[in-house]
Amino acid sequence: MKKFFAAILLVFLLSVSTAFAAEPLPSWNDTPAKRAIIAFVEAVTREGSPDFVPVAERIAVFDNDGTLWSEQPRYFPEVFMIDRFKALAPQRPQWKAIPGLEAAFEGDFATFPPVVNILVHAGSTTEEFAQSVRDWAATARHPETGRLYTEMVYQPMLELIGYLRHNGFKVYIVSGSWTDIMRPWTEKVYGIPPEQVYGSSLKTKFALRDGKPVITYLPEVDLIAEGPGKAVAIGKYIGRRPIAAFGNSDGDLEMLEWATAGSGLRFALLVHHTDAWREWAYDRKSTVGRLDKALDAAQANGWTVVDMKGDWKVIYPFEER
Amino acid sequence: MKKFFAAILLVFLLSVSTAFAAEPLPSWNDTPAKRAIIAFVEAVTREGSPDFVPVAERIAVFDNDGTLWSEQPRYFPEVFMIDRFKALAPQRPQWKAIPGLEAAFEGDFATFPPVVNILVHAGSTTEEFAQSVRDWAATARHPETGRLYTEMVYQPMLELIGYLRHNGFKVYIVSGSWTDIMRPWTEKVYGIPPEQVYGSSLKTKFALRDGKPVITYLPEVDLIAEGPGKAVAIGKYIGRRPIAAFGNSDGDLEMLEWATAGSGLRFALLVHHTDAWREWAYDRKSTVGRLDKALDAAQANGWTVVDMKGDWKVIYPFEER
Repeated sequence: MKKFFAAILLVFLLSVSTAFAAEPLPSWNDTPAKRAIIAFVEAVTREGSPDFVPVAERIAVFDNDGTLWSEQPRYFPEVFMIDRFKALAPQRPQWKAIPGLEAAFEGDFATFPPVVNILVHAGSTTEEFAQSVRDWAATARHPETGRLYTEMVYQPMLELIGYLRHNGFKVYIVSGSWTDIMRPWTEKVYGIPPEQVYGSSLKTKFALRDGKPVITYLPEVDLIAEGPGKAVAIGKYIGRRPIAAFGNSDGDLEMLEWATAGSGLRFALLVHHTDAWREWAYDRKSTVGRLDKALDAAQANGWTVVDMKGDWKVIYPFEER
Repeated sequence: MKKFFAAILLVFLLSVSTAFAAEPLPSWNDTPAKRAIIAFVEAVTREGSPDFVPVAERIAVFDNDGTLWSEQPRYFPEVFMIDRFKALAPQRPQWKAIPGLEAAFEGDFATFPPVVNILVHAGSTTEEFAQSVRDWAATARHPETGRLYTEMVYQPMLELIGYLRHNGFKVYIVSGSWTDIMRPWTEKVYGIPPEQVYGSSLKTKFALRDGKPVITYLPEVDLIAEGPGKAVAIGKYIGRRPIAAFGNSDGDLEMLEWATAGSGLRFALLVHHTDAWREWAYDRKSTVGRLDKALDAAQANGWTVVDMKGDWKVIYPFEER
């Protein structure tokens, strides 16, 4: 047993050495955004620094849609919901009686009916639902890039997550999207385990089905983790105030406010979508991922704003460098 | 930085070696309960074992009241609530209009009015509430032992938590009691950080108070993490099925069922309070921590039942050995 631990630790030691031998954040240009991240991490991790933060308190929270992966032309979780609705609808004729779904039944999701979120979850067990998400993530492709949605994650943010973890941070996702649409794949894609992934959720229920315990979704919203709901989710699910928060839209404003209002050195960052060629460019007027009030708050509070076009060498892992 | 990591890892390596050089669970007698724990941990951690479980999936959940600390003559969180009610009542004359509190206002808590839980939380910020818990934990003493309540934790269970953690387990508390009565002290007392502590909770709200973001409690229950609610809490807060679950009462039954119904080797344990001399002896007829249905389930399913009197050399850390 001792030998086994020693071997594991040696491997870990070597990998840490290698990671630190290389320059951190290689896909980031050497601009103020990258320098601000590194200055913050060095300040809170350097023993004897006035800003030193013990490992246990190094909590970082990330939004998902538009912060860790793309969200255009519509939120990816909505795409899952639509695909799942279409797959289930033929077996659920009773859905036709629900008002507001007429267009959806004709395949028109230009306006997304929120009740679809509930219909697609409700009645499933959490394990059946997770399987449907895994199946979708393995096959569904983005209409413009033709890539799997889980490939459309931001290479610079993957490096940032890795850099924070190497520096003792515990990294969480706190997203307005549905918790159980993220948990089945975040560990593989971001290295963030399901128990560190929170979002909006429905109420659930424990029951015995054929003598076997299951948890099923109820048709009732439990928490919408958007805007002030993100701070509420952090309090409830994490119970420790983050020292760093990363978002991209007005829905992240309260999360960044909550994180930065704690005592000691704090860090807040917004990803600003400025690259119409490699990704999308949108902010104050967008219906998806609107960044307006939070951009003003960033300017007022000195938060770091990432200019995707100027600050990132690559956007996606599949791009050539 | 490399040198710093190397030093940290060396210390860790040495402490792991030391921990494993000593016999695990020193306060446990060499009885079937101890042997079952060790056999399980060795089976899931030994590389090449048919029961091997990767580190990421080694989740263990513990009840708190009666499992990690005592709960007689009444649940310790209730004692906090009563003390806090008494401290606040003089400043809250409006509480007198609430039906069912007549006896409480005369200092009689023989029957505990559930509304007290809500009154004591509601309106406070989460940080004010946490401070009131810390103050209470630092000063309130048990009427029979004269000890701080946080001293009345079970030495054998502290060793069990440590043993699991040394073997790569991530250890959670999932208690029927209130989350925010545990989080302020669990890290210090059990080594379990607040973000791995869940219980019953009220709804909360984000607001600006004098321009500063705060989270306050609303007078509405969000989740009661007791019985089936424990399985619901695990699904929602952890999102990964535990491979081991530890409880002491009927309120833990569904948690143990949920954990053991997963595939692969699983472990469930009940602490049976059998030691009237060193602690308390109670089970099927007790109003506090009743162990009746779960005891039958343990027998039917081959779960481990700890006989506190026979299996534990000491109960509390302050006892002489």
